[in-house]
Amino acid sequence: IRPGAGHLNGYKIANPTVLARIGDDELVELLRGYGHTPYLVAGDDPPRMHQEFAAVLDRCLDEIGAIQRRAREDGVDLVGPDRPRWPMIVLRSPKGWTGPDEVDGLQVEGSWRSHQVPFANARDDDGHRKVLEDWLRSYRPEELFDELGAPVAAVRDLHPAGARRMSANPHANGGLMLQPLRMPHFRDYAVDVSEPGTGAVESTRVLGAFLRDVMRQNMTTFRVFAPDENNSNRLGAVLEATDRTWSAERLPTDDHLAPDGRVMEILSEHLCQGWLEGYLLTGRHGFFSCYEAFIHIVDSMFNQHAKWLKTTNGIAWRRPVASLNYLLTSHVWRQDHNGFSHQDPGFIDHVVNKKADVIRVYLPPDANTLLSVADHCLRSRQYVNVIVAGKQPALQYLDMDAAVVHATKGIGIWEWASSDADGEPDVVMACAGDVPTMETLAAVEILRGWFPDLRIRVVNVVDLMRLQDERAHPHGLSDAAFDALFTRDKPVVFAYHGYPWLIHRLTYRRSNHENFHVRGYVEEGTTTTPFDMCVLNGLDRFNLAISAIDRIERLDGRAAHAREALTNKLIEHRLYVRTHGIDLPEIRDWAWSGTAGPRSSGGSPLREPEA
Amino acid sequence: IRPGAGHLNGYKIANPTVLARIGDDELVELLRGYGHTPYLVAGDDPPRMHQEFAAVLDRCLDEIGAIQRRAREDGVDLVGPDRPRWPMIVLRSPKGWTGPDEVDGLQVEGSWRSHQVPFANARDDDGHRKVLEDWLRSYRPEELFDELGAPVAAVRDLHPAGARRMSANPHANGGLMLQPLRMPHFRDYAVDVSEPGTGAVESTRVLGAFLRDVMRQNMTTFRVFAPDENNSNRLGAVLEATDRTWSAERLPTDDHLAPDGRVMEILSEHLCQGWLEGYLLTGRHGFFSCYEAFIHIVDSMFNQHAKWLKTTNGIAWRRPVASLNYLLTSHVWRQDHNGFSHQDPGFIDHVVNKKADVIRVYLPPDANTLLSVADHCLRSRQYVNVIVAGKQPALQYLDMDAAVVHATKGIGIWEWASSDADGEPDVVMACAGDVPTMETLAAVEILRGWFPDLRIRVVNVVDLMRLQDERAHPHGLSDAAFDALFTRDKPVVFAYHGYPWLIHRLTYRRSNHENFHVRGYVEEGTTTTPFDMCVLNGLDRFNLAISAIDRIERLDGRAAHAREALTNKLIEHRLYVRTHGIDLPEIRDWAWSGTAGPRSSGGSPLREPEA
Repeated sequence: IRPGAGHLNGYKIANPTVLARIGDDELVELLRGYGHTPYLVAGDDPPRMHQEFAAVLDRCLDEIGAIQRRAREDGVDLVGPDRPRWPMIVLRSPKGWTGPDEVDGLQVEGSWRSHQVPFANARDDDGHRKVLEDWLRSYRPEELFDELGAPVAAVRDLHPAGARRMSANPHANGGLMLQPLRMPHFRDYAVDVSEPGTGAVESTRVLGAFLRDVMRQNMTTFRVFAPDENNSNRLGAVLEATDRTWSAERLPTDDHLAPDGRVMEILSEHLCQGWLEGYLLTGRHGFFSCYEAFIHIVDSMFNQHAKWLKTTNGIAWRRPVASLNYLLTSHVWRQDHNGFSHQDPGFIDHVVNKKADVIRVYLPPDANTLLSVADHCLRSRQYVNVIVAGKQPALQYLDMDAAVVHATKGIGIWEWASSDADGEPDVVMACAGDVPTMETLAAVEILRGWFPDLRIRVVNVVDLMRLQDERAHPHGLSDAAFDALFTRDKPVVFAYHGYPWLIHRLTYRRSNHENFHVRGYVEEGTTTTPFDMCVLNGLDRFNLAISAIDRIERLDGRAAHAREALTNKLIEHRLYVRTHGIDLPEIRDWAWSGTAGPRSSGGSPLREPEA
Repeated sequence: IRPGAGHLNGYKIANPTVLARIGDDELVELLRGYGHTPYLVAGDDPPRMHQEFAAVLDRCLDEIGAIQRRAREDGVDLVGPDRPRWPMIVLRSPKGWTGPDEVDGLQVEGSWRSHQVPFANARDDDGHRKVLEDWLRSYRPEELFDELGAPVAAVRDLHPAGARRMSANPHANGGLMLQPLRMPHFRDYAVDVSEPGTGAVESTRVLGAFLRDVMRQNMTTFRVFAPDENNSNRLGAVLEATDRTWSAERLPTDDHLAPDGRVMEILSEHLCQGWLEGYLLTGRHGFFSCYEAFIHIVDSMFNQHAKWLKTTNGIAWRRPVASLNYLLTSHVWRQDHNGFSHQDPGFIDHVVNKKADVIRVYLPPDANTLLSVADHCLRSRQYVNVIVAGKQPALQYLDMDAAVVHATKGIGIWEWASSDADGEPDVVMACAGDVPTMETLAAVEILRGWFPDLRIRVVNVVDLMRLQDERAHPHGLSDAAFDALFTRDKPVVFAYHGYPWLIHRLTYRRSNHENFHVRGYVEEGTTTTPFDMCVLNGLDRFNLAISAIDRIERLDGRAAHAREALTNKLIEHRLYVRTHGIDLPEIRDWAWSGTAGPRSSGGSPLREPEA
């Protein structure tokens, strides 16, 4: 809470406002409850109001000065019981103040009728035109303008000069103040990945250590914002460098609360977004982590920020500001505790409706790729960057060198997982997102177990906008590059993190689009095991393998037994999960083996699962 | 404001809550500022707390009774200065109350550590298991359960019976209480349309008269909700039947404010949405009108309601509730005053990500179709219905008989605008939404003026979900029906109200999809004329006609002059709008002529526009 000011003119379009009609007593209590000391200035006589307002302003400046002295000179920590009630001025003046009193016999000044256009017909109605003339003459234009119509010196010289002019204030053109972040080397935080598709790393925890050191090197220009508790999203390492902002009462059991903390943690996506926008627009840097489903709470605020970026890109004197960086985690595929209400990967869909030159979407499959992407986003300007990455222990695929190459390309063939190097693939298995990547690799292993001669190409997508046409997005692949990855005529089974139709929307112009078969989240879910969530939505390894079998020409007529065994597996899975409440051991313990996987057992799905 | 209750246990996951740490004085002021009389009950000794809470509850019930008597027996109108401050109880008790005091030497009860799982390892750690046992034994289970483990009679008989059981309370299963609305005949409100494509009717104003009479016949079970002023959205006729809900101070100049008003008008989309959801879930009916761009403010709330509907569809004892009806108006194409910040047609994209069996989207092109659609939506159950319709004067196309047929089909060929009755069309001109429909018809007239022998089919879409595959949405057309409308191989120029890629997403499986060329909103806009907004986004008649020319095989090599003249027109338009601030007369005054339009003049676009 800081000094505040509010203006109550009593009305919105055709209605009174609530605060204007609850009485001074309730209004004052409300504002005191918000932590202010309110001062009301009310009336309708302009000269008297000017004097009163000036006096209150002086009084408030004195109070602010006293508070500042208490902190700066007396060294009082202004928190808890010493937290100051900053002054707040409430100006109550009539709506349409000094405008026409009455028009057509109806009250205008001091009523809702003065909203926007207090009278409609000055062009054709003599009465209205007279009202307009009297109104404008009441400002005594002959004293304000010279004979050429230019403002007189008293008006011309009234405003401040230089950077104190409102339009030239550097705080309102934050790019002028912007200093690049001092960045640690993201490679120093790399996870060791000796064999791809192994390990159990919480990718966002790795990112947390990197963010901690970004914080340490930028203690006046960087903040992290978290409606859902930084710790819960595994970014807790940041608290080694700073605290959570807190100025109310503190207790000994509290954890890392301080008035100068730089972690803005409050269970309000709106506040986090608003604070971050203000912070960026005044020339600083920030990072917003959020539960994926609940970032929709700020859809409308994001809209306005994206529109701001698009518009300011066309205004030469507006300098670029730091990008607005979202990390969406606690995502749709891991709902071990929360379930259906916490599942919505659609913020990406919302974001990609905005102008292509201000939005970027990244789905790093593992920790090293996440580091590389985060480094890139923190250095960027004038974008909204959306990064989606899980916080649960997950397999790692790329060592740091490979991750940098992969994140830089944004999309690529994973040679080590592919078996089509000697020619055309029979099928392209594509994936975007950490869970879909794991399921795709497991499906590839299953397919190679059943059909060792199958030529499978694995394509992983980090930068979602690579899928779009190069004419539609600056990151879009050329048709030649796209066709080289996805072929012009082979089946593509695409496992995607979010709503599957987004992939169709991004690729509908591509020559091979009709062979794209996309699996993703189809709004099925509950509180269940990680693998069951995939099964409920048809994104699991067995369904992906079946989808491939159904589309690979060479398998036509050869794959009935494999298909049957995979279907049996799905039933075995369901029985096991319903009985044990956890996933089958072969699912829980699965890792990429580097060789063709075992041919699936194909045993009866109805045998009793082991206890 | 009604009686309230709150519980402050001090913490969220790992942090204190703000209200627990601002001191009782500020808390009480805040709640008094919200209009309550707060009563604090604080402590940690269960027996004493039970007694204190019971005493405060009695006191509050007495106060509520006194307020009710004042209104019911003494006849006091409880508004303005007589508005009661309803009591509110605030219970302050420790988080994890009566749970373990300490675990591993750290305080748990009364601290953030008691969140969810106060100790993690009861299975493997003897100390944790002992804590668990002591904790559970503290409830003296031997007194609560008999030797078979069933609750003893004292527990069994504690809860109320029948409809007073929480799970059986009919107010919590609103469908049980739901009565159908008594509906006026929507045909009685029909607009006279003697010639299609003429007139200047504010469609939502026509709807307002219908809603007024729905209100009159359902004065205890129907409310309208409006963050953006009902009047501004042209639904003001509703105020002939009821008032705006208002219980604060009133002045003589106020317009239709009353405590029992049934128009819920407040500039908070969140409050409107929350009120409406509660109203529907308790068995009533409602109608929510909103500026199109700002309905995104409740994206996340809509999500949860849609998920609720999907889930309850699978619960046999939950009875269907009335649908949640949105009217989105003040839409993207008419920004004569507001501009870019007020443009976002993406709520439709957000809605169609939800499960197909609970969502419906309608784009009625004119007033009679809007009436028919609204009647259908108000009678429906368990859906979210989204209706998009403009509030500005617009052309009308269908008389009531035709509108009912068209709205019932949801999609159809407009014979009167088509010229392909004798055979295959050369092009299908499709449209969805009021402004795109007008631009499409104007483009058709232009095309027929230049190429009188062209066979053009006009398809209008009201029910957007008709475009989807029948396997993907219950309203989806079969492939045969879709192909009959859109052909299997002819070019389709589709003018759509919202983001164009949504049409691709809905139709990508259709056989003729590769010939679909969609125009829509591409995030370009400012405060400008209605037609210029179309031009900025390429949805205008000239661009649509050019798109058709470029794709019609028969015109290959024949259309250079037409194309040039249309391009000239676009330049003429731009010069005129920049000069005069209004659209060209031929645009402003355009109406469907019923015959092939004049061949566009093709004159120099650089001649000076007339003054």
